[in-house]
Amino acid sequence: MKAADSQMKTGRSGMQPAALALVMFAFFTSATFADDLPSWNDSGPKRAIVDLVTRVTREGGSDYVAPPERIAVFDNDGTLWAEQPIYFQLAFAIDRVAALAPQHPEWEQQQPFKGIPEGNLTAVAASGEHGLLGIVAATHAGLSTTAFGAIVDGWIAGAEHPWFKRPYTALVYQPMLELLAYLRANGFKTFIVSGGGVEFMRRFAERVYGIPPEQVVGSSGAVRFEVMPDGSVQLIKDAKVEFVDDGPGKPVGINRFIGRQPIFAFGNSDGDLEMLQYTASGQGLRFAGLVHHTDDAREWAYDRASHIGKLDKALDEAKAKGWIVVDMKADWKTVFPFPQQDESKEK
Amino acid sequence: MKAADSQMKTGRSGMQPAALALVMFAFFTSATFADDLPSWNDSGPKRAIVDLVTRVTREGGSDYVAPPERIAVFDNDGTLWAEQPIYFQLAFAIDRVAALAPQHPEWEQQQPFKGIPEGNLTAVAASGEHGLLGIVAATHAGLSTTAFGAIVDGWIAGAEHPWFKRPYTALVYQPMLELLAYLRANGFKTFIVSGGGVEFMRRFAERVYGIPPEQVVGSSGAVRFEVMPDGSVQLIKDAKVEFVDDGPGKPVGINRFIGRQPIFAFGNSDGDLEMLQYTASGQGLRFAGLVHHTDDAREWAYDRASHIGKLDKALDEAKAKGWIVVDMKADWKTVFPFPQQDESKEK
Repeated sequence: MKAADSQMKTGRSGMQPAALALVMFAFFTSATFADDLPSWNDSGPKRAIVDLVTRVTREGGSDYVAPPERIAVFDNDGTLWAEQPIYFQLAFAIDRVAALAPQHPEWEQQQPFKGIPEGNLTAVAASGEHGLLGIVAATHAGLSTTAFGAIVDGWIAGAEHPWFKRPYTALVYQPMLELLAYLRANGFKTFIVSGGGVEFMRRFAERVYGIPPEQVVGSSGAVRFEVMPDGSVQLIKDAKVEFVDDGPGKPVGINRFIGRQPIFAFGNSDGDLEMLQYTASGQGLRFAGLVHHTDDAREWAYDRASHIGKLDKALDEAKAKGWIVVDMKADWKTVFPFPQQDESKEK
Repeated sequence: MKAADSQMKTGRSGMQPAALALVMFAFFTSATFADDLPSWNDSGPKRAIVDLVTRVTREGGSDYVAPPERIAVFDNDGTLWAEQPIYFQLAFAIDRVAALAPQHPEWEQQQPFKGIPEGNLTAVAASGEHGLLGIVAATHAGLSTTAFGAIVDGWIAGAEHPWFKRPYTALVYQPMLELLAYLRANGFKTFIVSGGGVEFMRRFAERVYGIPPEQVVGSSGAVRFEVMPDGSVQLIKDAKVEFVDDGPGKPVGINRFIGRQPIFAFGNSDGDLEMLQYTASGQGLRFAGLVHHTDDAREWAYDRASHIGKLDKALDEAKAKGWIVVDMKADWKTVFPFPQQDESKEK
């Protein structure tokens, strides 16, 4: 399938000399093209990315952008790593509810906790990202941020994706890892801007994506500072959700945490629409991109009707405004860093 | 005064050979000592700074700290720039109230606005940093963040400190500029963590301190995202104060925006106490420092009884815990980047 696809797109076997020269020219003028993004097919999105990076880094060129202004923002769930069959942080929250349930008999009568041990996730799913954050906040209230971090670390190390039977942190998109590295090599500062909990994502973002904690913007619960009786100090998590970094919250979060308008943004769902609008609305060259999950063999295919990662309005707006839409099936040579037998997910 | 002081401290003119050898040894083992912090006298604080930096950067040493963990946080008002006779952002707020008063006849009957045009700042001062932020928020509600930024830029460019008759951004501390550069040259990432408004400070922090917007943590007002009728997008300031990055809010802000515990922190007032406690409480080598304003000739002398930059509890705790207290008069060769006639402020 991949080989056929590739041949169809480039038609290299029957290529005319003029076309070949053109390809060679494109190759040599973008020296980093073939090397830095090997998991991307040589199609529209890759060309658009390389074109933008080449132009904004060309000193003296009309599109030049000074390095401090090369801010790139990425959604996490569905953009940098997978998000099916449920948001990975929801899997974490469910495992935590199950672990803590014996200490909370009152949960047996309370939604969204009630259905969780029985695997009835409808109520949880219906409560959306805010509901998920509420569960995480409620189940960890009173813990120090340090203790919470250790719990996340333990979960990440031990949990396994139900279909791929691999750690969740293995389910990151290889083309996006390459893109992050490529942007950084060209003077960009890469940020995560995600609806996920900031204290959850920061536990693996540096190791997995090369994105340090101070460049992770996310939703957050309230935290209070306490001096302990022995004089030591701690930050204690409260049950209250404080900031939801989703939808219009994303440009607000970017303004609050980063304080500059990005020139490059990638998302995958309607929750990223405002971030893309904000990024695209600035002056000069801008990149607004969406990952469209079209690959039911290697990953999943979903968009307008999905409860998770719903992509509807943003897809329409991307088409209307000429934003880049990555067709996962057509544009990505590989999806995950691990080998996939027959290029299909091990369902 | 400066020459006498220097001679008294080092006693170099009558130095014994053994002492001289020791000084020379110290000099050569800290190669950057004399060059990087020229405005610091060779006294306790400078020695403590260089000692810490030398130890945490020595690869293979027991105190080594990997570069990503070299997080340094600085208060702004009274630590990086002056804060007398009133917080500089309060001067901005007052000028804004005066400019906008004709459009707000209702302010004539409302505190804290009422007294401002007449120069009666008691009510404003009594309302503290939160009150100041409230004035800024109230006077700029409905403006876009872009428009607000332009107003700050205009004010910074035109306003003059009432005593020094210079732009406010000239009243930065030369020793602290050197310290910021010295830390960065040694792999530290420098952050501002201040009670001041984040959208105010970000307008000059990069140019003046070399600290980019995404490394400025401060108090903030609510902002909302809006799509305009013409399809353009804006972030609009609301009147609500959302986060006060002062006192216990500082470690909370550090956790939220940076997500790592700093190893180096500098403040100057009781509002910095919790940030210093949080920084000092981590494992390994830590630096917690206070600027003590002791120099009424070149700057100001104030501490426990001051309404602005009150330093009382934090001074006691610094002494009890052995934190570094900079005696401005004794430890700083120069205070400001501009020459001061007779080393006294031009009152």
